[in-house]
Amino acid sequence: MKKLVNDPKNVVNEAVAGFGAAHADLVRVSADPIFIVRKDAPVAGKVGIVSGGGSGHEPMHGGFVGPGMLDAAVPGPVFTSPTPDPILAATKAVDGGAGVLHIVKNYTGDVLNFETAADLAAADGVEVRSVLVNDDVAVKDSLYTAGRRGVAGTVLVEKIAGAAADRGDDLESVALVAERVIGQVRSMGVALTPCVVPHAGQPSFTLAEDEIEIGIGIHGEPGRERIKLEPADAIVDRLLGPILDDIPFVAGDKVLLLVNGMGGTPQVELYIVFRRAAEVLAERGIEVTRTLVGNFTTSLEMQGMSITVLKLDDELTTLWDAPVQTAALRWGR
Amino acid sequence: MKKLVNDPKNVVNEAVAGFGAAHADLVRVSADPIFIVRKDAPVAGKVGIVSGGGSGHEPMHGGFVGPGMLDAAVPGPVFTSPTPDPILAATKAVDGGAGVLHIVKNYTGDVLNFETAADLAAADGVEVRSVLVNDDVAVKDSLYTAGRRGVAGTVLVEKIAGAAADRGDDLESVALVAERVIGQVRSMGVALTPCVVPHAGQPSFTLAEDEIEIGIGIHGEPGRERIKLEPADAIVDRLLGPILDDIPFVAGDKVLLLVNGMGGTPQVELYIVFRRAAEVLAERGIEVTRTLVGNFTTSLEMQGMSITVLKLDDELTTLWDAPVQTAALRWGR
Repeated sequence: MKKLVNDPKNVVNEAVAGFGAAHADLVRVSADPIFIVRKDAPVAGKVGIVSGGGSGHEPMHGGFVGPGMLDAAVPGPVFTSPTPDPILAATKAVDGGAGVLHIVKNYTGDVLNFETAADLAAADGVEVRSVLVNDDVAVKDSLYTAGRRGVAGTVLVEKIAGAAADRGDDLESVALVAERVIGQVRSMGVALTPCVVPHAGQPSFTLAEDEIEIGIGIHGEPGRERIKLEPADAIVDRLLGPILDDIPFVAGDKVLLLVNGMGGTPQVELYIVFRRAAEVLAERGIEVTRTLVGNFTTSLEMQGMSITVLKLDDELTTLWDAPVQTAALRWGR
Repeated sequence: MKKLVNDPKNVVNEAVAGFGAAHADLVRVSADPIFIVRKDAPVAGKVGIVSGGGSGHEPMHGGFVGPGMLDAAVPGPVFTSPTPDPILAATKAVDGGAGVLHIVKNYTGDVLNFETAADLAAADGVEVRSVLVNDDVAVKDSLYTAGRRGVAGTVLVEKIAGAAADRGDDLESVALVAERVIGQVRSMGVALTPCVVPHAGQPSFTLAEDEIEIGIGIHGEPGRERIKLEPADAIVDRLLGPILDDIPFVAGDKVLLLVNGMGGTPQVELYIVFRRAAEVLAERGIEVTRTLVGNFTTSLEMQGMSITVLKLDDELTTLWDAPVQTAALRWGR
């Protein structure tokens, strides 16, 4: 295993400490239990928004903490859910009296631990609502998940819900707009290589030299099928087909197109993918009105990418465009 | 070779087309010759700023085109200098009557081709000044370079010179502030793995399973030494020592600390590196007042990172903080 780490046991706490030092203008970090909150939390009268999950998917979620997006992020061990304890602590730390929204990716561990934390917070008088992101069309019921997995569409849910909270919406309204994004966003990914979880020290799966996995999960869990490597355009077509057919997206729709790198894929490749995806959407009469290209929901150093399409309307577009100031997404401030 | 590409010959033109489609709000792209300009170029009365070089170092330079930074970027083939032709075309496209600054990384091909383009532009009546970035303290005179190589410090030169041009400085003043940054910025990198240039199809060098290269160049060209893999903190110390001793940086200095990923290194590792680098600087009495962590000057999918330290003063800090709106760096707009 070749990694820039010290003791593999300390990867998350050292990374979070470094994150806090690098972005002290935006966040504070708690070392025990581990969580990241915006510097000025709690914001009185504003709905607090908390997300979290296993580490290794950076910049998700810590990179999205700041004005206009998340109030707190709770990183678990690499590819492992955080326990209820830090989720509860983060929830209390961001409660400004207007309640707290939990944005949870659909993995069994995350669902259980966020639920427990929500119950404990409620017992302490904090009103909590939860939404479950399940944008991955690749498979239903896979390793770690009952139902569909939550993947890169989560970034869009966090940005748009964050903007709704930022403009002063109440908890019910913020939860509703988050649910609306979840209803209109679909994703699917591909892996060219596995990744190595530091405390395991070995690749989490193997792929032959000429093999790729279509529909991969963000922890390397199985997708739809393993096929021989194909040209980028053909791979894009394989991912976009199931995404577009799912809701379905139809001619006349306006969409946000996100091409997300899994961590180890160069930007030139992500833009080659974007080019083809935009072509396919144009051929179907779907208008790409907002775009995002880069590493937003990664699987450590995995080579691969995912495509996410979100159907926009005027309100979601306005909320997407609203100012945001985080380590990983920033505009308008 | 496992990559998300179609024909390896078309990597750069397809990636640039995708970049243009993804960021049509910021840039226009020319397909032949290949270059990227800000959408509203030329800006009348503003000094134009052009940079460029081989592709594969994304987001450098196309990701830095936009208000407050570059007016144009000229991507050559992967790891290969652009010819004078597109550099000349880009220079003319951004000339708003106040002259054009070329920001050139110190590689023999880049230096020659930017010089030729500058001469041709001058013959066409465009005033051109050039600055040469050579921030890499690892080696003097290496493959492709006489003198020191230009690496991730280039991003800081581009941001600060871009801000100077944006506030209305004349060509001479913009060149002077760029030279001042170049005088005060130093970098050094490490590789854990090689990368594969698409048209070559093979790794550009080899490293044993337990071996890393200290002082690597951004094209994989040789550094100072190959050593056994060490804990991250020890590697950081190996890079920071030569950087800090070079100018030297001393107690009381205020600095910008950039931890740059080479493309294939997960963010958790970059933040582990940042944590140690900030510790070392604090121990030496050097104050980190600005930070940047992420993939800014990459070597395709290489695993590794570089550390860059820029000595700041009030003017450079103000220019760093000034609004910028590009695909890869954005704040204040």
